[in-house]
Amino acid sequence: MALIVQKYGGTSVGSVERIHAVAERVARYLARGDQVVVVVSAMSGETNRLVELGRSVSARPLAREMDVLTAAGEQVTIALVAMALSDRGHPGKSYLADQVAIRTDSSFGKARISAIDTERLLADLASGIVPVVAGFQGVDDDGNLTTLGRGGSDTTAVAIAAALGADECEICTDVDGVYTADPRIVDDARRMSQVTFEEMLELASLGSKVLHPRSVEFAGKYRVPLRVMSSFEDGPGTLITMESNEMEQPIVSGIAYSRDEAKITMAGVPDVPGVASRILGPIGRAPIEVDMIVQNTGADGLTDFTFTVKRDDYERALEMLGAVQTELGARDLSGDNRIAKVSVVGVGMRSHAGVATRLFDALAAENINIQMISTSEIKISIVVAERYLELAVRCIHDAFELGAVEAEEE
Amino acid sequence: MALIVQKYGGTSVGSVERIHAVAERVARYLARGDQVVVVVSAMSGETNRLVELGRSVSARPLAREMDVLTAAGEQVTIALVAMALSDRGHPGKSYLADQVAIRTDSSFGKARISAIDTERLLADLASGIVPVVAGFQGVDDDGNLTTLGRGGSDTTAVAIAAALGADECEICTDVDGVYTADPRIVDDARRMSQVTFEEMLELASLGSKVLHPRSVEFAGKYRVPLRVMSSFEDGPGTLITMESNEMEQPIVSGIAYSRDEAKITMAGVPDVPGVASRILGPIGRAPIEVDMIVQNTGADGLTDFTFTVKRDDYERALEMLGAVQTELGARDLSGDNRIAKVSVVGVGMRSHAGVATRLFDALAAENINIQMISTSEIKISIVVAERYLELAVRCIHDAFELGAVEAEEE
Repeated sequence: MALIVQKYGGTSVGSVERIHAVAERVARYLARGDQVVVVVSAMSGETNRLVELGRSVSARPLAREMDVLTAAGEQVTIALVAMALSDRGHPGKSYLADQVAIRTDSSFGKARISAIDTERLLADLASGIVPVVAGFQGVDDDGNLTTLGRGGSDTTAVAIAAALGADECEICTDVDGVYTADPRIVDDARRMSQVTFEEMLELASLGSKVLHPRSVEFAGKYRVPLRVMSSFEDGPGTLITMESNEMEQPIVSGIAYSRDEAKITMAGVPDVPGVASRILGPIGRAPIEVDMIVQNTGADGLTDFTFTVKRDDYERALEMLGAVQTELGARDLSGDNRIAKVSVVGVGMRSHAGVATRLFDALAAENINIQMISTSEIKISIVVAERYLELAVRCIHDAFELGAVEAEEE
Repeated sequence: MALIVQKYGGTSVGSVERIHAVAERVARYLARGDQVVVVVSAMSGETNRLVELGRSVSARPLAREMDVLTAAGEQVTIALVAMALSDRGHPGKSYLADQVAIRTDSSFGKARISAIDTERLLADLASGIVPVVAGFQGVDDDGNLTTLGRGGSDTTAVAIAAALGADECEICTDVDGVYTADPRIVDDARRMSQVTFEEMLELASLGSKVLHPRSVEFAGKYRVPLRVMSSFEDGPGTLITMESNEMEQPIVSGIAYSRDEAKITMAGVPDVPGVASRILGPIGRAPIEVDMIVQNTGADGLTDFTFTVKRDDYERALEMLGAVQTELGARDLSGDNRIAKVSVVGVGMRSHAGVATRLFDALAAENINIQMISTSEIKISIVVAERYLELAVRCIHDAFELGAVEAEEE
């Protein structure tokens, strides 16, 4: 018997049938004596439909109103799931963000949760009611509706689990866990039975779509045990743990990638202080998000400065730098929007030398040229031409023997 | 310069183009110095879509959850209208029911408004913001979302107008006013420049779809000047007034009809006290709404008892009365679900004898048999076979010369 918060994403509540399947799944937990709080997203496609509707009305839709608009999606699913539960004899009760006081700041479209009032939820649980809470949304101090941005429902679930001191927060989705690499690319990719928060955070930030980094961060901060599992099939999923309890940590846990990348190089820039800020200043103010930054200085007193941006921002960033190039007297400005980033992640990396060597050897053996390298304590990211992406992921997966059978949890 | 509450129905906000047309219309009022509060319904078809979705999930959907579900429709339109206004340089701000504290009782699906907090609305108006309020919904004392039932957005608009002491409440819709009869049936039906609350209430209750009776009742009670007008075309519409200020009141103002009728007759019932309640008791408890009731007693001590119900309830009502017939020893139980009700309404009726005669003569001249008659101070309703409906409406319209040109308001 445990107190569990379960979050069901858009695909899991994407049709009447699937909503009934969710109710059925919740009922199984209740039958074994668990208490469950359900958090749901909008039905798949609905949030995008609403965003499109907003954009078709206004080229620059008000942020406040976009939040009111998109929050309507979750309102529909909480009602439907509560009905489906009640049909099975388990009284369900829907809650909008303001009804359980999911307080956020006023950053419309990307609000951050500051507090949750658990009084109603606890009263419901005590009287056998299953609260069904709208994910993705909140309410600010002035009573304005806010939304939490992409992955917001995961964050809602984790925040509720933290506030309730739940035993576990289950992120129920259309995959059965977190894999060592994308199974669509790597045939022998393996579901991890567990992964540490640090690793999951890197994997999530680096393009693994299973969990949103903010929810992982939140879960780590409040020490909420988080589990990624399938809404549709039984199975243990992947547990995201504080610390790995395996005797020997694998050097590399998983591989993430992102296609959504472009790089820009300003070459032959006089190497004087302040160059980086002259180049990145206008980009940051745009605002365009910059990911990797690499600077190499040659013997001639000139430096090459390269950074990556999201592919959508590429044209705009390149255009802005035209003026900067002239200003700085840089020799050349060029870019490439057909690149991809591949990252290997693992807490074991800290204590093992030679990870980089093994990685570079594997790529060299396949004649894949590495365009950029960036490292952190538990990850190494490389940029390669997009056409090599799949090959790179596969050969790295092999090099670190990630496909080998892991001892299954008891 | 005036303070005006404008309500736009589902057809008026049924597409992106129409939402822009609404914003354009509001902007014209603002340009001449008026202050405007906008109340909107869900986009046409949306409420039905949500109701269907709820029914497809549950055969007996929870009333509380149906309200949460359907209220999502208005949430979408308030955001879109606020955006469209802001695009025209008139800052719009959307409000859900709970954000302006539209308090109701807890009768889900047919809640009644008890209070509205005007503080935010007044503050917005003072600073040049156009509040855009979700119609149809409210919040009860426990913070549960409620809905007001059919015609609910009209009621919201009237209630807000009453709370603000607005100069006028405009019901903007897809027709340009209230007509002497349905223009689809009567060629020379004429838009009334004004009509009294009493008349409008009868016309609304009797099947004229333009305004919901509850909103008319509400407007009458709080003396809110109400105007029905087109969202799409300019024009004065129809003003619903406290008292007619015309020197001579027309005997009959308008004609309403309803096809949605069925009658049931229990014949040859022993005429003893309590028979009516024995017959209508089970019907009322079902609950099935009963409209007209007629009882005729013959010389033989037996009575015929006839009443009308909505056509949807016909089969069920007939079935329930089988047992009652046996119990009462009534000679016959029969019914007809191919009937229609036609009503003539007019405050002038009070002071004019002969209205009934003129009505009956007109029908007799067309050989239309009257099956039931019911009268009130300002209306006469008759039941005829459904196939005579159009003919009856037309000949009555002619008989009272309703098509004659009315002196147009200045």
